[in-house]
Amino acid sequence: MKKNNYPDIQYLFEPRSIAVIGASHIPGKIGYIVVENIIADGYTGKVYPINPKKGKIVGCTVYESVETVPGEVDVACLVVPAPLVFRAVESCARKKVKHLLIISSGFSEIGNTREENKIAEYARNHGMRVMGPNMFGMYSRAVQINATFGPKDIMPGGVAIITQSGALGLAMIGKTYVENIGLSTICSVGNKSDIDEADLLEYLVPHQDTKVILMYIEGVKNGEKLIAALKKATQLKPVIVVKSGRSKRGAQAAASHTGSLAGADNVFEAVMRQCGALRAETIKEAFDWCSFLSNNPVPSGDDVVIVTNGGGIGVMATDASEKFGVKLYDNAHKLREIFSPTTPDFGSLKNPIDITGQAQWQDYDQALGAALDCDDISAVIALYCGTAVFESDELPAMIERNYEKYKKKNKLITFSLFGGEPTERCVTQLTKKRIPVYNDVYDSVSPLGAIYSYLHYLQNVTDKVEDIDIDSDAINAIVNKARKDDRYFLLTQEAQEIMKISDVPIPRTIVASTLNEAVRSAEIIGYPVVMKVVSKDIIHKSDAGGVALDLLNEREVIDAYEAIIRRCKTNVPGASIEGVEVTEMVKAGTEIIAGAKIDPSFGPIVMVGLGGIYVEVMKDVAFRAHPLNRREVLSMIKEIRSYPLLLGVRGEKTKDVESLVDIILKLGSIIQKSKGISDIEINPVVVYEQGEGAKAVDVRILLSKDQ
Amino acid sequence: MKKNNYPDIQYLFEPRSIAVIGASHIPGKIGYIVVENIIADGYTGKVYPINPKKGKIVGCTVYESVETVPGEVDVACLVVPAPLVFRAVESCARKKVKHLLIISSGFSEIGNTREENKIAEYARNHGMRVMGPNMFGMYSRAVQINATFGPKDIMPGGVAIITQSGALGLAMIGKTYVENIGLSTICSVGNKSDIDEADLLEYLVPHQDTKVILMYIEGVKNGEKLIAALKKATQLKPVIVVKSGRSKRGAQAAASHTGSLAGADNVFEAVMRQCGALRAETIKEAFDWCSFLSNNPVPSGDDVVIVTNGGGIGVMATDASEKFGVKLYDNAHKLREIFSPTTPDFGSLKNPIDITGQAQWQDYDQALGAALDCDDISAVIALYCGTAVFESDELPAMIERNYEKYKKKNKLITFSLFGGEPTERCVTQLTKKRIPVYNDVYDSVSPLGAIYSYLHYLQNVTDKVEDIDIDSDAINAIVNKARKDDRYFLLTQEAQEIMKISDVPIPRTIVASTLNEAVRSAEIIGYPVVMKVVSKDIIHKSDAGGVALDLLNEREVIDAYEAIIRRCKTNVPGASIEGVEVTEMVKAGTEIIAGAKIDPSFGPIVMVGLGGIYVEVMKDVAFRAHPLNRREVLSMIKEIRSYPLLLGVRGEKTKDVESLVDIILKLGSIIQKSKGISDIEINPVVVYEQGEGAKAVDVRILLSKDQ
Repeated sequence: MKKNNYPDIQYLFEPRSIAVIGASHIPGKIGYIVVENIIADGYTGKVYPINPKKGKIVGCTVYESVETVPGEVDVACLVVPAPLVFRAVESCARKKVKHLLIISSGFSEIGNTREENKIAEYARNHGMRVMGPNMFGMYSRAVQINATFGPKDIMPGGVAIITQSGALGLAMIGKTYVENIGLSTICSVGNKSDIDEADLLEYLVPHQDTKVILMYIEGVKNGEKLIAALKKATQLKPVIVVKSGRSKRGAQAAASHTGSLAGADNVFEAVMRQCGALRAETIKEAFDWCSFLSNNPVPSGDDVVIVTNGGGIGVMATDASEKFGVKLYDNAHKLREIFSPTTPDFGSLKNPIDITGQAQWQDYDQALGAALDCDDISAVIALYCGTAVFESDELPAMIERNYEKYKKKNKLITFSLFGGEPTERCVTQLTKKRIPVYNDVYDSVSPLGAIYSYLHYLQNVTDKVEDIDIDSDAINAIVNKARKDDRYFLLTQEAQEIMKISDVPIPRTIVASTLNEAVRSAEIIGYPVVMKVVSKDIIHKSDAGGVALDLLNEREVIDAYEAIIRRCKTNVPGASIEGVEVTEMVKAGTEIIAGAKIDPSFGPIVMVGLGGIYVEVMKDVAFRAHPLNRREVLSMIKEIRSYPLLLGVRGEKTKDVESLVDIILKLGSIIQKSKGISDIEINPVVVYEQGEGAKAVDVRILLSKDQ
Repeated sequence: MKKNNYPDIQYLFEPRSIAVIGASHIPGKIGYIVVENIIADGYTGKVYPINPKKGKIVGCTVYESVETVPGEVDVACLVVPAPLVFRAVESCARKKVKHLLIISSGFSEIGNTREENKIAEYARNHGMRVMGPNMFGMYSRAVQINATFGPKDIMPGGVAIITQSGALGLAMIGKTYVENIGLSTICSVGNKSDIDEADLLEYLVPHQDTKVILMYIEGVKNGEKLIAALKKATQLKPVIVVKSGRSKRGAQAAASHTGSLAGADNVFEAVMRQCGALRAETIKEAFDWCSFLSNNPVPSGDDVVIVTNGGGIGVMATDASEKFGVKLYDNAHKLREIFSPTTPDFGSLKNPIDITGQAQWQDYDQALGAALDCDDISAVIALYCGTAVFESDELPAMIERNYEKYKKKNKLITFSLFGGEPTERCVTQLTKKRIPVYNDVYDSVSPLGAIYSYLHYLQNVTDKVEDIDIDSDAINAIVNKARKDDRYFLLTQEAQEIMKISDVPIPRTIVASTLNEAVRSAEIIGYPVVMKVVSKDIIHKSDAGGVALDLLNEREVIDAYEAIIRRCKTNVPGASIEGVEVTEMVKAGTEIIAGAKIDPSFGPIVMVGLGGIYVEVMKDVAFRAHPLNRREVLSMIKEIRSYPLLLGVRGEKTKDVESLVDIILKLGSIIQKSKGISDIEINPVVVYEQGEGAKAVDVRILLSKDQ
């Protein structure tokens, strides 16, 4: 059965009826809690507990089997032990259930992959989609259903959570309630035997109630599908991602405890950025962002002003702004105009604006209004140290009034309130109203960093990807030949041939079999040249005296040719010498590494970095998923710390970055369109001054082993 | 009067009597609040409010002037307006007051530096020490005195806070109370006209009640004094530092709002690490560390185990451990032995230990005990996702029991509890008891990072500094000669001469005035050599044809000598040619930058980094304050990202790092011992293979302008 015949995923989140297979009569058992939670949340559809003992559970009539249920069943939620799951799925198929929510564990997470695959395949063949197994269920605000064995209290709201960790997900339900973060849905993907994050995004993207999507990810299986889904999602709403396994050891731990590969974290990081997803470091940060982004508009500009009553915290907010990529407004004239009425002489009218410890709430009121009435300023970070003159009963109302007023005008204020009990009370009171008030300076800047990062993504994103024409047949022929030789790497000449086929510039080389040919070749190529002996019998060319560098003219070529032939004959007696390879002597330039590879999580990716011996030491590299466009390649190149080398340092001219972009796009296309290449690495690509191009000096190509 | 005659700083923190000059009869005025706070906190000494109107304030008899007070006055606290301060100080001098606490503002912070200096000098000449002006006062638990105009409620405890920001300091009083962080003292240093952080450390280091010192710093004036004080302090107790102005823009903002220079943040960071001070990024983090370090012992080992009931948060804790430098215990055999009784088959026995979502509090109890009874393990990070089976009334008691039990054995547990209301209640309840329980995974790892960083410092620190003998007279002679020429830089030969005086290896050079001398010189130096014309009349030696590189033998030296003389005579007719400079041709090696300079905050500092053109682009540099020892220099070198280049990459041999250490120590000594040198930079120092030394190829020396 084709995917087209699959049931609409909407029925998973908005079922008209749900059967709970394995419903229990014993309070406290998972099979009981699920039914109890469904009823408690006020679900408006039909609930069918399934248990051979029949009777009633939480007031609902229990059916012997799903097949005996009177009406249609959109979702069957399975909580039976693993060995009983398959038979229950067969029952569901007969009943023509649309979606299976398999809570039961004991499958691939403990190595029982076979049973899991069997179930998933059976379901697929019978037109059912599977969520799970090994998950905690699903909450959906749209039909008021809490089909989980987690807490009863769920705060309805605009945040959708998709989590790969069940334990963390259950705790998130409780924590979001405590933190006053409203949910539109929360579900764990479990072992992803069928439905994965990308499928869920499909439902959540057009979903009206969902303002923000939060994904907790441990590893990515089908990254290309996820990329496509994320790119679509972020066009319409912010997606926040938390992924554990940032560190080397963390990645190992992640791989050991889930079935999926965590992958190189810097690839993950780059791909998320490319898709416009916002990556939070901690759950706390992710929750702060969710709360902020689901309750506040995306502003149109990105100029921010810090207003503070303490110089020190103003400086800290400046540090935090740099850390989180928040741009501080710099127009000295306007700042003076706006803030001089509220700032004493010994304060500061440079951003951060220090209205000093003498400031009272009225001074803030005036300063906030003056700032946000200015068209240039999109947000204010308002910092308060609790002082005797400042702590006041009027403060919460002033904050709320300004926040609500400017929110309507698409402007933002975040507050950091630091002090004793009156201050803490103010924070608690306003947090309940979902006003962005924090205890710490950094916390008040971080959500702005997230929203501006999203804004910048939206301002720059384009659907366009560069489609480079590559003669993949010619490339595949070379690859297949290597395969026939049982090789998983290409020889230098083969790799160079692929570069030629793809129009990637490499040093010119001509093989000459006579002295005259050598001289002619050198003239065609242009001096200086390098000469190397060509002989199947001579492996170590330098040792045999078969190499001559930096030949400047005809005379030197003639001398070198004769010397090479003479030395090789002496050093390797009986060697059959076919001639010499005359190669352009590569000029010095900026040495870059460029590459493309098939990433185990995300498929084709491209890479750029500082080349030569610095690659391994400095690890100054950047990544992107392929396909992509020129602007994205350029933004990748700009990410490397050594980018200034390409701009030209110490009075050098700017380098030919566009040629480097060309090469990277071609590498991406080769790896994507040809069959069987797993890695291409050019180190170095020597990049010359603008207009003078770049050259791929050393090209290595590996073939994939799993094809 | 010499500093020796200064009063003991103990009388500042433990005064037997205090006068409040400018005490007010009007409630709410600063002059009233200070008296009120002193009384409210239960101060046991004598309180003398001073006001010409006399009468009573908060029940204390008011005196007309400080001179009319009947008894001795250890501290006078001044809250009169700035123009009246000097006269009050004169009064205090007559009364032989020991310490002045000048709360009054209106001095150097608004440009009125003259009046401030006048007061400080007058006080110094009359044997009084000054704290302030422009500060909020001082709290000292030892005599129960709250001589501030801040909140009345202060939690007594083991944390001493020294803050450079008054507004933030006042808010900290309130915040520490809310957060249950006990204080031994808190004071702001204000404009530091006399007493600075280093002086305060002097009191706090031997102070029994003070377990941890927290310093909030905006800029450092007398860094050498601070370094000495910090090094002494950290031998006895942890010092936590928060400094705003990390970012470029933040540093500018800091400089604009206080009177002191923020300095390059990476120098500050390096110096703090060198002194064993722990730098927190945010106030929140600093408070977490203060609370943790003041209530927990420094463990003897550093192996840590993560125990979790959720795989995902276990991986996050692993990430956090790498971020905060916490070492995870790795003995697979022992881990299996310890944890297999408490871990189900589908859990994980690799650190992080995943006892799975089925774990109940009893399983934790057992796992914690088993782990901490093992001699190898010094701490456990215990992570909890709130699950149905886990949330329990027994949990807080279990946590407290284990925490207290193992604390006595010098072992640590930190807890991260993530979940709904029962979990939150547990966190609140235990935080009140100062048990290290946090809401977020990263928060539970960060304080361990701080304590282990301190432990590692204590394990490695030594008082010893390398004393390198430098002929400073000879160096000063060169410097003075340049000064006489009105130069603030040294010529190449002068800089090379200083290197020779200090035994820093530079390429060998001999000036030869005849062909024979040139040949002899080349033989002495050893081939290959470089030759350059020596002539006052020829500035651009290359253009004049006065340079020949890579001369391999006598023949080439003769040819080159003749060619140089001929070309120079032709190209610069009439030039007086003194001869040629014959120089060793420097072999290729690893190019490093090494330097020393007088830092505006910290005095003599040394620097090392990746050399050549990469200096500006990669900014891969590390710093230390001078003087220091070989091990510290080595640890500085190991900090640079490109350190592997010195270890040898791609099969190269290890480089002669010891020679580099020698050079850096010498540069430090030159800058410290000679007069008038502000900067020495060698770029590159070419470092060769082990045993083959290093060479200072290009040396630049600048002289200071402010001497």
